[in-house]
Amino acid sequence: MAKILMKGNEAIGEAAMRAGLDAFFGYPITPQNELPEFLSREMPKRGKVFVQAESEVAAINMVYGAAGCGKRVMTSSSSPGIALKQEGISYIAASQLPCVIVSIGRGGPGLGGIQPAQSDYNQSTRGGGNGDYKLLVYAPANIQEMCDMIMDSFDKAEEYRTPVMIVADGMIGQMMEPVEFKEVDLSNREEPWWATTGTKNEREHNIVNSLFLQPDILEKHNIELFEKYDKMKKNEQDYELYNMNDDTEIVTVAYGTTSRIVKNAIEALKEEGINVGLIRPKTLWPFPTKAFESYPKNAKAILVVEMSMGQMIDDVRATNEGRLPVDFYGRTGGMIPTPEAIQNKIKEMLGGK
Amino acid sequence: MAKILMKGNEAIGEAAMRAGLDAFFGYPITPQNELPEFLSREMPKRGKVFVQAESEVAAINMVYGAAGCGKRVMTSSSSPGIALKQEGISYIAASQLPCVIVSIGRGGPGLGGIQPAQSDYNQSTRGGGNGDYKLLVYAPANIQEMCDMIMDSFDKAEEYRTPVMIVADGMIGQMMEPVEFKEVDLSNREEPWWATTGTKNEREHNIVNSLFLQPDILEKHNIELFEKYDKMKKNEQDYELYNMNDDTEIVTVAYGTTSRIVKNAIEALKEEGINVGLIRPKTLWPFPTKAFESYPKNAKAILVVEMSMGQMIDDVRATNEGRLPVDFYGRTGGMIPTPEAIQNKIKEMLGGK
Amino acid sequence: MAKILMKGNEAIGEAAMRAGLDAFFGYPITPQNELPEFLSREMPKRGKVFVQAESEVAAINMVYGAAGCGKRVMTSSSSPGIALKQEGISYIAASQLPCVIVSIGRGGPGLGGIQPAQSDYNQSTRGGGNGDYKLLVYAPANIQEMCDMIMDSFDKAEEYRTPVMIVADGMIGQMMEPVEFKEVDLSNREEPWWATTGTKNEREHNIVNSLFLQPDILEKHNIELFEKYDKMKKNEQDYELYNMNDDTEIVTVAYGTTSRIVKNAIEALKEEGINVGLIRPKTLWPFPTKAFESYPKNAKAILVVEMSMGQMIDDVRATNEGRLPVDFYGRTGGMIPTPEAIQNKIKEMLGGK
Amino acid sequence: MAKILMKGNEAIGEAAMRAGLDAFFGYPITPQNELPEFLSREMPKRGKVFVQAESEVAAINMVYGAAGCGKRVMTSSSSPGIALKQEGISYIAASQLPCVIVSIGRGGPGLGGIQPAQSDYNQSTRGGGNGDYKLLVYAPANIQEMCDMIMDSFDKAEEYRTPVMIVADGMIGQMMEPVEFKEVDLSNREEPWWATTGTKNEREHNIVNSLFLQPDILEKHNIELFEKYDKMKKNEQDYELYNMNDDTEIVTVAYGTTSRIVKNAIEALKEEGINVGLIRPKTLWPFPTKAFESYPKNAKAILVVEMSMGQMIDDVRATNEGRLPVDFYGRTGGMIPTPEAIQNKIKEMLGGK
Repeated sequence: MAKILMKGNEAIGEAAMRAGLDAFFGYPITPQNELPEFLSREMPKRGKVFVQAESEVAAINMVYGAAGCGKRVMTSSSSPGIALKQEGISYIAASQLPCVIVSIGRGGPGLGGIQPAQSDYNQSTRGGGNGDYKLLVYAPANIQEMCDMIMDSFDKAEEYRTPVMIVADGMIGQMMEPVEFKEVDLSNREEPWWATTGTKNEREHNIVNSLFLQPDILEKHNIELFEKYDKMKKNEQDYELYNMNDDTEIVTVAYGTTSRIVKNAIEALKEEGINVGLIRPKTLWPFPTKAFESYPKNAKAILVVEMSMGQMIDDVRATNEGRLPVDFYGRTGGMIPTPEAIQNKIKEMLGGK
Repeated sequence: MAKILMKGNEAIGEAAMRAGLDAFFGYPITPQNELPEFLSREMPKRGKVFVQAESEVAAINMVYGAAGCGKRVMTSSSSPGIALKQEGISYIAASQLPCVIVSIGRGGPGLGGIQPAQSDYNQSTRGGGNGDYKLLVYAPANIQEMCDMIMDSFDKAEEYRTPVMIVADGMIGQMMEPVEFKEVDLSNREEPWWATTGTKNEREHNIVNSLFLQPDILEKHNIELFEKYDKMKKNEQDYELYNMNDDTEIVTVAYGTTSRIVKNAIEALKEEGINVGLIRPKTLWPFPTKAFESYPKNAKAILVVEMSMGQMIDDVRATNEGRLPVDFYGRTGGMIPTPEAIQNKIKEMLGGK
Repeated sequence: MAKILMKGNEAIGEAAMRAGLDAFFGYPITPQNELPEFLSREMPKRGKVFVQAESEVAAINMVYGAAGCGKRVMTSSSSPGIALKQEGISYIAASQLPCVIVSIGRGGPGLGGIQPAQSDYNQSTRGGGNGDYKLLVYAPANIQEMCDMIMDSFDKAEEYRTPVMIVADGMIGQMMEPVEFKEVDLSNREEPWWATTGTKNEREHNIVNSLFLQPDILEKHNIELFEKYDKMKKNEQDYELYNMNDDTEIVTVAYGTTSRIVKNAIEALKEEGINVGLIRPKTLWPFPTKAFESYPKNAKAILVVEMSMGQMIDDVRATNEGRLPVDFYGRTGGMIPTPEAIQNKIKEMLGGK
Repeated sequence: MAKILMKGNEAIGEAAMRAGLDAFFGYPITPQNELPEFLSREMPKRGKVFVQAESEVAAINMVYGAAGCGKRVMTSSSSPGIALKQEGISYIAASQLPCVIVSIGRGGPGLGGIQPAQSDYNQSTRGGGNGDYKLLVYAPANIQEMCDMIMDSFDKAEEYRTPVMIVADGMIGQMMEPVEFKEVDLSNREEPWWATTGTKNEREHNIVNSLFLQPDILEKHNIELFEKYDKMKKNEQDYELYNMNDDTEIVTVAYGTTSRIVKNAIEALKEEGINVGLIRPKTLWPFPTKAFESYPKNAKAILVVEMSMGQMIDDVRATNEGRLPVDFYGRTGGMIPTPEAIQNKIKEMLGGK
């Protein structure tokens, strides 16, 4: 299939529909409105359901309901809107239902601003939803990858019966890049065995539930959830290594939009004879600990670069466990790091070399 | 003042009122209903405001409003209810307003159960609210401490202009213990300079705001927030060291109810000649990294004990940075660890000694 | 087309779908849940939209939105649920949009009971929505009529650009009767000229609006509405006359389920030589004043029979203007009048004849 | 007590507080915001409760709760806001609880405008709440009367255990007039016997309820309600007769602001030798039928004047029962009738005299 030039937000929508999206439930918030706007126009044409709910709380609970029926279902929002959805996300995770949540970050906290940010890393990887649960969290760095991840998300969500979150920012959403969609054959897709779609007197009732009043039952349930999460930790870690070789002195860690800027800085430094590598997590949860198992032999330090005051750095520290010094460079509130600033930071780390 | 035998939930309420609580806004959820029930009865008698709102979302936004007026204001809820409040908490933190949030954990995720749990550690220390912000988070281990912390919370909340969270579980709430209340003299308490209570044409308007559309302004705002958080990291870490001496072989880390059980296990092991210490965080955020700066010289390993699948353990790992092996024992879903199980785990770590 | 034996609630749903129902938005309440349940199952099969909203308020506002797009849209509820929709209904009427509202009465006020009642006559004909507006209100007495009225409703709603209400009660909903559906050819149905479906740069923007801040403009708007309502008064009055002839001594007035019982009473009285007639309003608004223009020449009195404490009687009095004495018999709260009780009331009115 | 010059909205608030207002719950809407604004400032000073709720629906349900506790409680809103409260009002009426509802009319339907109107006559006297119930509805024509009616409302609400509505419009709210407040001695006011304030193990539980699933019980309940309403019809009708004498040729009927304009027209016509009278309903429900029992002997016709398309006219027609011709003059949407226009209408009715 040929590549098409598409805007990020529309590409997400197109990818989701090609992956079999049955229903979308959302509530408007900048800077992700182009996605629901596109879907509101396109989904009815394809006989699919688009609903703008009364609120983010209503939307995520509609997702919960549709997911329980075995449908491929998605919502999207931005930072404070995702906050409002945390209770619902915890319920969906607890009930072991699949869904896809697109989280387009804007500067926070509170209302904050509408410019790109990565300050919801904790929100996506730790949740604000209650209890022991995890999401599978993808962080694409370009539109093609975003489309691939969206399409995979629906499969992974069903494979693990878990909510999957796609974390991006407004910059990717607004960008235009050529994109190619994978062929998806949904003709053999069967209704999931757990879907609450009526027994037709042919099977036991399927029940969607997150309430377990007996503590031993609830503990058993949680342990089962974590067997699943352990499997995800083992099988779903994904990352890119860039310019990681024996000469690499500094290992940067960055994801999403920020990783693109870091790559620019790496290329510029290469011109100056400074060798810098990049670990780019493509999954934020499970955090790609495998990428940290061995460092380049000349690596002197780690530099985490985020569009936040420093959130992923906790995972880097817990993974690194003191093997290399860990430094941080971040911009926040919608400010975008420049390659130059990153280059300067790295030079400073290397002792003004 | 003499000690009074009180139930945990009522003691929280009494402490808050003695600390000058002006208003409480909440929505019912087990297992913390005794607290609002008590306050609904007592606050009107003292001319204070108690409101049961339409929902958790409504309640936290009422807290936001009252906090903006310079009032001493509190809400309480349990796990899924706190999840629903995450957006509001992020707004209050962003607007730099003081308030006190009581979070009584129940087993999760989702509706989960109503028995005690500590599986909202991430929820309280990382937030699910969006953006770069932190709460001051206290974790009392007995009723006296809970009362002291509640009373301090109102002062700390105002000192730092930040939401303060008290994390406990239903067990402490239901327990009866003798308690003594600090004397609080509020007679000289002045209206905060930032309170939105009308200018009377004598000053500039005070404005409560979390919206900063210009990224450079928002970044400046976030940096200011983090100067405050850094100050809190420096000055507010609080913890208890128990049985930490040169002979300590295993360092346990536990907070709240769990720490009481761990202490029982420590005492029982002492009888058997096994020397185990405890670091008990009294603040969950800032995490008491100071307590980890030097370990007992014979310490062989760290054992984190939580009523969760393991959440605080991330902070322990990031703080420990590989100096000692870190092990975990947890129960979840409302199951309470027994001292015996903890003793066995420790013996196992010591090689079946 | 052959007649099919159908339950009232399912017949409503089938009739609406055959009339081109594009979307249904509702929230559950007894005793009308069978209707949304049926539609939730059938509409997706036909590529149509069914949404259970967060609340009645959310549902009626979704109706408002879909109606604005020129879709054929319906909601249904029961007494307290219709009360919650009054604001939305007023907005839709003010914005001159078509929709169909099914109101299945249960005993009130408040939560009341779940048995049939006609105590929402004022609610449907006077509205609780604010301002000067009217609905076209149909009151079917059997399932065939209900189906015909539902089907006509969509046409009338579009013809007059107004919400149309179908008032029935749980008894008709639960009943089974043979029913035949009119053939509806929607193949030539064009998108309404006022639908807000995008200008495609080919026309002016269509705007859905009920806000007119300039009083002279709002007055002009209201006068236009009433020109429409006057046209409806002239053309849409509908009623049945039963056993109205020169010998008729008592004229009963009754609608819906009650009229069926009155007819039984009339037949029983006929056996005894007592001649009683019935004016059965098929439209509650416009009230069928034409049926009252001339009375049977021997008519001595009017008897209004309602399953309420007396609501339609006000319209009868205002229409009768003192020409005949007006008496009332009613049961309320879900109690159903018996034919015997009506017969006795009539005999009593005739002086114990 | 001396008269004070006060603005209508503040006078309402002051009157309510002097009548013992314990709590106010509301949600903002133009043109009545000055009332809640005033109360939000003054009530806390007097140790009373003011809450701005999440929505009109939340507000009326808080009224319901506080009323159940035997408190003197009030809400206020304007046209669409009152529409949203209809369900709650029906619940309060059904539960036989007292409260006071201030309804400041604005032009409708829908959002309409913010200028004065009387187009919510049906909304207040018929309700949009479900079921058989009535409110006691007062319509003051000046600020002194509004204050007296507000003060009486609390007593009447308790006497009949019913919601009382005060219907006014923005014009009265904005006006300044001298006002004198009645002395109210609340020192002996006892907690109502039905208040749900805890049994203290000294009495049976008081239960607030509007659900009666057995139809015979619900019917009995409704009949009891109507015995109360019949008593109100007998004892609470209130009206003013103005210039009603043997020479009166035209009887106008008008209430509230409109009646003030009609009086101006009457005085102007008197100068021209035209004798016109006025029946001014002070209670809209019960409608003052007593005022219509006998007309001035020379009366030729009735002229109903409303700031609506004609709503009260139905009650006039049903009461008049054809004895005199009934004519109508109205302005709508926030347009105010002028005395001149009314004079011309009357002259036209009198045959161009």
